[in-house]
Formats: sequence, C-alpha cells, structure tokens
Amino acid sequence: MSFMNASELVMLSNLLDSRQPHHGLARQFYHDESLYQVEMEAIWRQGWLFAGHSCQIPNPGNYFLYDMEGDSIIIIRGDDGQVTALYNVCRHRGMVICQQQEGSVRRFVCPYHQWTYDHSGRLLLQNGMQESLDKSQLSLHPAKVREVEGMIFISLAKEPVEFDPVEAAFAPVAKPQGFSRAKVAKIMDYDIESNWKLVWENNRECYHCNVNHPQYIKANFDHYNADDTIPRVAERLKAVTSRLEAKLAAQGMALRAETGMTEFPDPEHGMWYAANRTPNEQGYVSETMDGKQVAPLMGDYTDPEVGTLRIRSLPNFWIHASCDHSVAVRLTPNGLSHTHIRMIWLVDGKAVEGRDYDLNTLLTFWQLTAEQDWKICSSQQRGVNSHAYTPGPLSSFKEYNLERFLRWYIQEMKAYLGK
Amino acid sequence: MSFMNASELVMLSNLLDSRQPHHGLARQFYHDESLYQVEMEAIWRQGWLFAGHSCQIPNPGNYFLYDMEGDSIIIIRGDDGQVTALYNVCRHRGMVICQQQEGSVRRFVCPYHQWTYDHSGRLLLQNGMQESLDKSQLSLHPAKVREVEGMIFISLAKEPVEFDPVEAAFAPVAKPQGFSRAKVAKIMDYDIESNWKLVWENNRECYHCNVNHPQYIKANFDHYNADDTIPRVAERLKAVTSRLEAKLAAQGMALRAETGMTEFPDPEHGMWYAANRTPNEQGYVSETMDGKQVAPLMGDYTDPEVGTLRIRSLPNFWIHASCDHSVAVRLTPNGLSHTHIRMIWLVDGKAVEGRDYDLNTLLTFWQLTAEQDWKICSSQQRGVNSHAYTPGPLSSFKEYNLERFLRWYIQEMKAYLGK
Amino acid sequence: MSFMNASELVMLSNLLDSRQPHHGLARQFYHDESLYQVEMEAIWRQGWLFAGHSCQIPNPGNYFLYDMEGDSIIIIRGDDGQVTALYNVCRHRGMVICQQQEGSVRRFVCPYHQWTYDHSGRLLLQNGMQESLDKSQLSLHPAKVREVEGMIFISLAKEPVEFDPVEAAFAPVAKPQGFSRAKVAKIMDYDIESNWKLVWENNRECYHCNVNHPQYIKANFDHYNADDTIPRVAERLKAVTSRLEAKLAAQGMALRAETGMTEFPDPEHGMWYAANRTPNEQGYVSETMDGKQVAPLMGDYTDPEVGTLRIRSLPNFWIHASCDHSVAVRLTPNGLSHTHIRMIWLVDGKAVEGRDYDLNTLLTFWQLTAEQDWKICSSQQRGVNSHAYTPGPLSSFKEYNLERFLRWYIQEMKAYLGK
Repeated sequence: MSFMNASELVMLSNLLDSRQPHHGLARQFYHDESLYQVEMEAIWRQGWLFAGHSCQIPNPGNYFLYDMEGDSIIIIRGDDGQVTALYNVCRHRGMVICQQQEGSVRRFVCPYHQWTYDHSGRLLLQNGMQESLDKSQLSLHPAKVREVEGMIFISLAKEPVEFDPVEAAFAPVAKPQGFSRAKVAKIMDYDIESNWKLVWENNRECYHCNVNHPQYIKANFDHYNADDTIPRVAERLKAVTSRLEAKLAAQGMALRAETGMTEFPDPEHGMWYAANRTPNEQGYVSETMDGKQVAPLMGDYTDPEVGTLRIRSLPNFWIHASCDHSVAVRLTPNGLSHTHIRMIWLVDGKAVEGRDYDLNTLLTFWQLTAEQDWKICSSQQRGVNSHAYTPGPLSSFKEYNLERFLRWYIQEMKAYLGK
Repeated sequence: MSFMNASELVMLSNLLDSRQPHHGLARQFYHDESLYQVEMEAIWRQGWLFAGHSCQIPNPGNYFLYDMEGDSIIIIRGDDGQVTALYNVCRHRGMVICQQQEGSVRRFVCPYHQWTYDHSGRLLLQNGMQESLDKSQLSLHPAKVREVEGMIFISLAKEPVEFDPVEAAFAPVAKPQGFSRAKVAKIMDYDIESNWKLVWENNRECYHCNVNHPQYIKANFDHYNADDTIPRVAERLKAVTSRLEAKLAAQGMALRAETGMTEFPDPEHGMWYAANRTPNEQGYVSETMDGKQVAPLMGDYTDPEVGTLRIRSLPNFWIHASCDHSVAVRLTPNGLSHTHIRMIWLVDGKAVEGRDYDLNTLLTFWQLTAEQDWKICSSQQRGVNSHAYTPGPLSSFKEYNLERFLRWYIQEMKAYLGK
Repeated sequence: MSFMNASELVMLSNLLDSRQPHHGLARQFYHDESLYQVEMEAIWRQGWLFAGHSCQIPNPGNYFLYDMEGDSIIIIRGDDGQVTALYNVCRHRGMVICQQQEGSVRRFVCPYHQWTYDHSGRLLLQNGMQESLDKSQLSLHPAKVREVEGMIFISLAKEPVEFDPVEAAFAPVAKPQGFSRAKVAKIMDYDIESNWKLVWENNRECYHCNVNHPQYIKANFDHYNADDTIPRVAERLKAVTSRLEAKLAAQGMALRAETGMTEFPDPEHGMWYAANRTPNEQGYVSETMDGKQVAPLMGDYTDPEVGTLRIRSLPNFWIHASCDHSVAVRLTPNGLSHTHIRMIWLVDGKAVEGRDYDLNTLLTFWQLTAEQDWKICSSQQRGVNSHAYTPGPLSSFKEYNLERFLRWYIQEMKAYLGK
C-alpha cells in the first residue's frame, strides 16, 4: 500500500468504521483517489473475476484479452483443451504481446524482438540473446484461472480464496443451460461515468424498477416488496413457482429452496457468489419484450419453462439466462468514476442468425433494461460528487440486498487493512 | 481543509505573505492544485454568487440549475413567488433530481425511486420506505438565496456575510433598469482555458483596451488614464457627465459622486460589490456598434441617455446595462485552469425579437468585446504556466483596480487561513 | 525539488540504486509522476536540447517557437545574424508574446498591453507605465543557445555544462553536409503515447529491426550483431568501409576510427553526444526505398557516396543525413506517458520541390521507419504499465547501447540528487 501513508491509513480505517448501518456510503467512497487504489488491491486484485465464456475460445490457440485497470490478461485455450491465463507482457522488455483483442495463435511471438512462447507461457525462442540465459525463468507471468460450466474466472491474486465452493454452487445449477456448447450472438461494450460500486448498488435492488424498467417488470417479480407482498401478487408468485417446480422436475432439475427474491450477498457467511432459478411472470418463458421464446432452446432443456437462471459473483459478474438465451454482465473499474461494462449474449451453439433467431429481437429486452441502469448510475455519480450529498436511509423492504452489498464491501476493505 | 497538511498550510501562508505590492501574483497562484482547493473554500463557498436573473424563472415552479464546481444548485420560484435555492441531490441515494438545465415542475420527483419534494425542498412522498422514517429530516439541503431587483444571488456558506448592505447598494441604482420585468434575449456559455483570477485581472483594467477592444473604446472612457487625462478628454468627459446628470435628474435618478472611472474593489473597506452609472462617449446611448439604441427602452427609462449602469460583485459577477439592453457576465471556476463563463443578454419584457430588435445587432458589441478578452485570458494562462514567468510591475495609472483586486484576494485567503 | 518530500527522495534514491545491470528499468520509472518531475529538472532542464535547424530562420527577425513542458522558447535570429533564445513570456503580466509557431518580427510587441522588446529581448517601450520603472531590469528572460553548423541547441539551465566539446565533435563531421545552407522540405509532428525513455531505448538497439524495419535493414548493417557477425556480412562491411574511406578521402573527408556500429552513449566518459559517418549497404547511396539518390547533393559533397552522417545528443536529438537529404528527430516529453516528436527533412537550399525532388519519394523511407518505431513504443508503454511487468535481461550482443543509455540515465539522476 505504498500509495497511502500511515495517517491516510488511519483516516481510511476511521472512514470504514463510520459507515452508518442501513444507509448509503459517504461521499469519499466515490470521490477519493487513494481509497480507490486500496479497493483495487483489496477487492479487485484479490477476488475472482468473470473474464468471459468458454465458447469464446472453443479451440486450442483461441484467445481473448481481458483488460483490467492497466493489466492485460490473455485467456487462451491450450492444446490440451485447458484454459490458461497469462499476463500480456513480454518478459524481455515489457512489450504487449497480443495486440488484437481476440484471435488465434499457434505460438505467442512478441512483435518487438520475436521472443516466442507456447500456449502455457513457456519461453521457447529468444534469438539474439546470450546462450547463458535460463529460459525456464522467463515464462510469461501467469494468473489464476478456473473454468466452470462454460464460464471462465480469473484471479490476479497470488493466493486467491478457494474456488471449489464456487464451482460446487454454480456447476449443478448452470449445467443444463449448456453455456459451453453455446455461441456468442453479440458483445456490447460500455464505458459509463460511474464508480463501480454504484453499478452494484443499482443491481442489488429493484425499488427503482417500477418506473425505470417498464419492460423488465412485466417479466419479473423483483419489484414487489420482499416481505410485504399483497395477496394477489403472492398468489401469482405461488402459482408460477409450483408450475416451475413441476416443469423442472420433468427435466430432471430441482428448484432450490431459496428461489425467488434471493438474498445476496451474505457477507457474514462468506457468500460472495450465488446461483439459483427464479420463476418468471405468467406467460413469460423468456426475458424478452413479449415473453415469447426468441431462439432455440439451449443446452439440455426440453421445455421452455425453466424460469431464469441467475448467477452472480462479486465484484464483477452477473448473468440472466432464459431457456433460449443468456446475457452476462462483466464490470471492470476504469478509474474512480468510470466503469467499463461488457454484455455478452449467448444462444445455442447450433442456432443460426437470421434463420433461428433475429438479432434485434434477441437484444432489445436487456439492451433497454441495461442502458436504463447505466444512465441512472451516471446521473447518480454526479449527485454523490456534490458537497451536499449525505448518505440517506435505505428501504428495509426493498434495499436489503444493497445493504448486504455494502456490508460485504466494508468487510472486505477492513479485512485487507487488517492484514 | 483536509486537502492540505500542516506543512502545506505553512507554505501557503508564506506564499500569501510574499506577494509584492503593485505586482502580479506568482506562478503558484495559477498552477497549484491544492491552493485552488483552498480558494474554493475560502472564496467561492464563502461568498455570494450571482446565479442568474429573476426573469429566467417568472412563474411558480420555474427553475434553472447553477452548476458550481461539482455542485448543482436548483434555483426555483416557489408558489408564494419567493425564490429558493436547493442542492440538486436526492436525500435517499444522492441521485441528481433535475436532469434538465431549466424547466418547470409541480413537484420534484427523483427519477431513481420517485422520492417527491415540494418547491421548498420538503419531502412529501417516499413510497417504498419504512413508515418509521422522519420525513422532516429529509428535506433537500438548502443554499442561501437573495433576490434583488431582478438579480439572484446565492451562497453555499452555512453563515455567509450579510447581504443587506449589498441590497442597499444595488437596489436604488438598479431599480429603474427593470431587470425583473425583462426577458432573456440570449444566453451564451463559454469554457475558457484560464484560471478565474486572470479573468478578473483582465476585467479590472482597461490598459489593454486601446488595441484589443476597438469597438469598446469608441463608446467608453475607461481606457484613458485615471489621474492623468489630457485636457481634450477631460473636457469631453466633463461635458457628457453634466449632460448625463441633467438627463437622469429629469428621470428622477441621481448620478452618484463616484461615477466615472470607479475604483473597485475596496478591500480595506469591505467593498466587494458596487453599483454606479457611467457616462458614455458623446453620441453613444447604448453599448452597440454605432452607439444607437437597438431595442426598446427598459424599465422606468423615458430617455435613452442614462449612461451605463454597472454592477459588480466578487467573486463572480458584473453587468453592463444600457438604456435598451443589459449583459450580465457570470464566472464559475472549472478547475485550476478553466473558467466557465455565462453571458446573459436581457431586453425589455415586452420586446419581440424581429419586430422590436434584431438579435445579431443586439449581440455584436459585447460578444466581440468579451471574446477578445477570453482569448487574451487563455493566452495569458499559457504564459503564467511557464517556469520563466515572474510577476511584473503594475501600472499605477491604469492597473490600480487590478492591484485592488489582488489585495482583496490575498485578504480573503488570509482571513480564511486565520480562522 | 519542492514536489518531493524527504521520504520520497529516499525512495527515489533507493529505486535508482536498485537497478539491476543489463536489465531494463522497473515499472516505477515509467509510471511515477514525481519521478517524472525529477527527470524534468535533472535531465531536461539541465542538458542541451536540439531546438531546430538554422535554415528555419535564415534572416534577421525570423523566429520559431520550441515548446518544452509548459515553457515556450522563442528562437530568433537577431540583426547581427546571431541566434538568441528567449522565454515567450511578457515581463509585465506573463502574456504569451508570440502567438504563432513561427514567423518574422521587427520587434516583439506583446498583444496584451503592447510592451515592446527588440530581438535580443531588451524592453524598448512600455507606454502606460510610470516613468520610474527601470526598463533594463525587464528584458525577456533569456535561455542559453548555441548554433553549430546549422544546428541550434538551447539549454534552460542557469549554468549548463560546457558546449565547446560538443561543437568540437560535431562541427568537423557535420560541416560538409551544409545544414546551414539547406532548406526545410517537410516537418512532421507526432504525439505518441510513450514515455520519452522508451523512445530512446528503442533507438539504441537494432535487435528489433529485422522484423519491424524491412526498409531500413536493406540500407544498413545495424541489425547484425556487434561482435559476432558472420563472415559473409563482415566481408561486405569491410568492402563498403574501404570504398567509403576512399570516396571520402577524395572529397577531403576522413572516416573516423569508430565508424560502424558506434557505441553510444559512453556515460563513464561523459559522452552524451557523438557524430560519425556510417557506411551503407552496397548499392545504397541514400537512405531511400531503393537506395538511389532522390534530391541534389547537399553541402560540399561532390560524390553521392558519403555514407550516412549520424549525430546524436542526449536527451532529445538524433539525425541521419545522406548525401542528398537529412532527417532530424527531436524528442520532447509531454507528460509521463506522452512524447512529442518532431521530424525535420532537409534538402539542399537550392533544390526545388517538383523539379529537383519528389516530396513523397523523399519522405517514404524515414516516415515508414519512424512510424514503425512510434507504434512499438506506444504498445510497450501499455506493457510496462502492467503490474506484472518486471525488467527483463538485455542482449549482450544487440542491446549494449541500450544498457549504456540506461547507465547514463541513472548516472544523471543520481548526480542531480547528490547535489
């Protein structure tokens, strides 16, 4: 933490302690450059980050880059089919090796002096150098990587927290979706003027949905109060839930107990990741404008009524998957008040655009809903920048997950400072 | 002053003390980021700022925003006709409430979760929140505001200096101009690459006018020396002054003693504001290209010969008002080396564009003159950035008001540090 | 060094000490803002900087500006034919005096208040100021300047290192090229996203040439190993060297002993400057696409076979001059990770574009070669920004001059801190 001196660390520690429960964060959390640098170390360089989908790199030699706060990581499928993550930095003079955002390579050849590495990062050739050099000490620096049911996660930490429990939670729920046999229908990239936490705060409540997401609320129950739903809604929810349970059972799947308005995260129990199925509103088999299926069934599904598969992991990932398509959201901080957001739409690997699905029809629902949120987050950033901004109270009915997110955030920051 | 540690404060204090009288300011004053932050607190968040004209918000519910260094202030006319100033930040999650720069609202409804406030900032509705919340504690944060003869001033200070003497000085002189019954003919916004002080330094002397303002000097006497005018000019000035006194008397107004080349500011006597009438050159009844009237008479005027009404207040406002139109200039710092400048042209409220005035004819004189200055200030900023820049001597004949401005600035900064 | 406190100075000193010989520099050298500020003082405001060619200002009153890190320097030829360097900042209020990048003036007249200076910077007129001012104390601040055989060097240091040895080294080698009788064929300006040191590191080795500079390696021997050349190449080099020696002797010039793969710089012997002639490949009389002459012979040359005249001085200059044209490269830091680069193509003063040379044919070779390097440097900057970047080993055969450059850099920085 060379970017903070002792008195700054005390100030940061006091700031973390001063957070008032059930209220937002103070202005400094969105405004202080050195606090942001601590976040990068405490959270973003410690945790597991969703990088992309396995189906983006189906064959040996296929790679894509994930650029994270000044670092460029190569995610490549090796000859043995395993995925490897390598820093995109030559061990000779620090040159960026892969200049394209994605592609396919037999070997990595640095464009500066042609040092050549294999798919695992091992240095093969360094023509022009003295013989005495020990090539084994000059492999590309690796990052940690895990592939689970078609989702690739990396960690920049030397010793990240264990990933096995995440895999255990994600794999059985995600498996029927068939992510690994899917194909990319569309990738959209956004750079929004908002601190990354505001994007999560927005994601962790549907209090704002009624007015801001006219499309989304037709398909979902999230905007109703957690523990105070009116009888008519409770009945409707009960009906779709029973129906979904039956449908899933017929396809060999189970609806897990916590289905519905999932509480997430659960920092006191170390739950920074979760996967579940959520019932849609009556008449909606897919998160689309009219609720109708817009592409062929994915994965193992034999019936479109599978609800929505939702997976999330902090600090950078969530996905909504319907029977026929999925939409992943990947966040990456890009400075104190900017966040890069990538959205990835997948469909079944055999689906053909124009024949099996119309791209616009596929995109509209989530493109609209997401862009409504990106606009909110950008406006909110300008508001919390104000000297007059003070943290307000959170709704106990509708913002309990936001409160959980903030608890998780404070807990992670304190844990790091305590080290 | 959390942005400065103890040793930085000592350095700043020494820097303020080191200013050589009758010379410009040293390079650091235009170049040091933390000094700029102190200025924001010592001057801009302490003083009274011109926000705009009353006629921009004639009716209840009309509002406009004034964005000042990260803060957005809503200036709104309430149902009782009074003007209120509120921070444009929801008390719930810090969202920007008014997204448009101006408009009309029945109530303020936050676009994020629809918290609803009345024109005075009182929280009316917060659907979705627990009943236990005390709404009376969640009004929009207010700023201080005063309306005087059609000019609106705000202060972001908790306890600003008293405004009554300002009103006493401005009201009688400004009243006949009828600002409150006027209408906006044009608003122009500039963002220039210059520290805000350089803009004032430019404003406080007319040594530069001869060559740089060929239009302005035809209409005005400012470019002549204060105490060393040649007999021919002194005679001409005496003639127009007597003539103006007679004309004003006939309209029930008096030309105040200090009329002419006014000395402003007067920091030793606490005068950071001033209002007076200044005679124009012979044949000029309006600050226009040919000196002719270009729009109907404003306010109470019955004769075009009223000279120029000039009002100024530090740190952000001056206005030149002829018989037929007025041009306000509002400065707002936008970082160390940028200043946002708004110019507002007013004409009589009943005047109709195209019938009673031609917009281009109305704008030309001050648009030319102002843009000549903005260009100078931007060039000067590049010059004072140089390592070779050293403060030079000021002219005792022509830059005495610049010297007064610098004394005022140093005085305000020291007063703040002394607290 | 007000921008560094005591503990930062210790950290910097340790950083300089920690450099591992025969390896690149650590990440901080390309990433730390305050280290960059020290470099500006220790190297850029101490050393001699190539500003431009004499033939850009052939006549009295001709001037051009050199903008260096916030400072603007006027390089002007005076009435006595001597070149003077003056800071482009009025002694009155700090205004930029010359607004155009180049031009011709009888006197310098500040556009703000018309203070007027002669070509030597002496204040002549200051109308509007009190008589008591001592004009002799208000000359434009001067910079040091030296003109040698058509090349102009300046220094912003109060007491720069002596320039006489540089002149002694450059003049005899450069004289026959006739730079002072030349004319500008083209100036190209680049702003590349790269720290200035990376540009030098690239310049100081030709290990990267084989793949990156297909045009350059046809004309030159640089890409072969310094001390390990295969017999076929050694033979070819020997042949062109003997041939060049004979040709030069016939023109009254000598090929100096160190001709060939010059070792530069030589920090242990204070050599931050060097000039020599290098033989071209067989069949190349000019650094052009096909090796043929593309413009009339320059200067005193009577035979096109003069090899390539190469001159370099740290921290900002190198030139390649063939028999018929020369290409100067001038570097200027523009922040931590940007470098402004000016390239100047000269031809003989009597040559007429379209008649004696085709501009595109003249430019292609070096424009291609240079832009290949600018692209490399920009990519490398992104790589060394990575948290995973660690300095790698340098080639003892091919990067010995890079190693010398880094030693020079560390030596200069330490010398400054030691003061």
